[in-house]
Amino acid sequence: MNPADADALIMQPIGHVRSPYQDVSEIPKGLGAQHQAEGWLDIRPELEAGLTDIEGFSHLIVIWVFDRSEGCSLTAQPPSDARPHGVFATRSPRRPNPIGLTVVELLERQGVRLHVRGVDMLDGTPILDLKPYLSNVPPERLRRGWLAEAEARRDAIPSGR
Amino acid sequence: MNPADADALIMQPIGHVRSPYQDVSEIPKGLGAQHQAEGWLDIRPELEAGLTDIEGFSHLIVIWVFDRSEGCSLTAQPPSDARPHGVFATRSPRRPNPIGLTVVELLERQGVRLHVRGVDMLDGTPILDLKPYLSNVPPERLRRGWLAEAEARRDAIPSGR
Repeated sequence: MNPADADALIMQPIGHVRSPYQDVSEIPKGLGAQHQAEGWLDIRPELEAGLTDIEGFSHLIVIWVFDRSEGCSLTAQPPSDARPHGVFATRSPRRPNPIGLTVVELLERQGVRLHVRGVDMLDGTPILDLKPYLSNVPPERLRRGWLAEAEARRDAIPSGR
Repeated sequence: MNPADADALIMQPIGHVRSPYQDVSEIPKGLGAQHQAEGWLDIRPELEAGLTDIEGFSHLIVIWVFDRSEGCSLTAQPPSDARPHGVFATRSPRRPNPIGLTVVELLERQGVRLHVRGVDMLDGTPILDLKPYLSNVPPERLRRGWLAEAEARRDAIPSGR
């Protein structure tokens, strides 16, 4: 990607994730993976005023960068399914823009350090933005596509007939 | 921001939003604002394979750019409250990285065009990424900070005493 392109957007990390994961192999993946790991979001000290009142929210949306992912593939075979899917229908790291998104639970704020539960990022991951998590999609209107189908295949009890 | 910075990240739009809104004044804002407007996410034709199977999901997370917002303010006074809050505790456009996020309902796919409900972006807004919306935060564990307080103040019936 050419930074001279008129459409190019240049971003700078607002901080970094401190997580127990040094290698992607350590991060729980696939169907039913639980992300209960605790970690810290270390925000740049000069941005501290931007965190005012954030402790009132139980959950935050963290927008971050897959900084150790290389290249892009338009189809991806996720760990939760043996079939390939379009990259925009997955959470694959090999995306046109290597943006990751995680909803974490905010446990505590210590100045510019946010103690959170639910990290699934590598230690040192650059953070681009934080937003309060405000609302859910009504459960009766949520369809989960190939992921629901893969779960159904996993859960199917083989018939004796 | 200097693109030569070692930490700088360069992104390119994957497409653009077609929305009924030409000016920010037209977008519903504040407490109880309903985002029922329909629009289209027009993805770049060369990325079409990345949309494979996306139609199985009822809702998508759209990550986009506040391309007509200028500058950054670490505190923001949102339309829903008379009090200022840290920018990371709000959806203010004037963020260190001008990233927006909207959850939309996917109504229909026509090739690289996605017909969606719930747009709150201006017409022509650059899109950085699409992800399937997969899960909710358990409602009993969700706290909504200053926004819940502002709603409570709005809803309070003045006492006659």
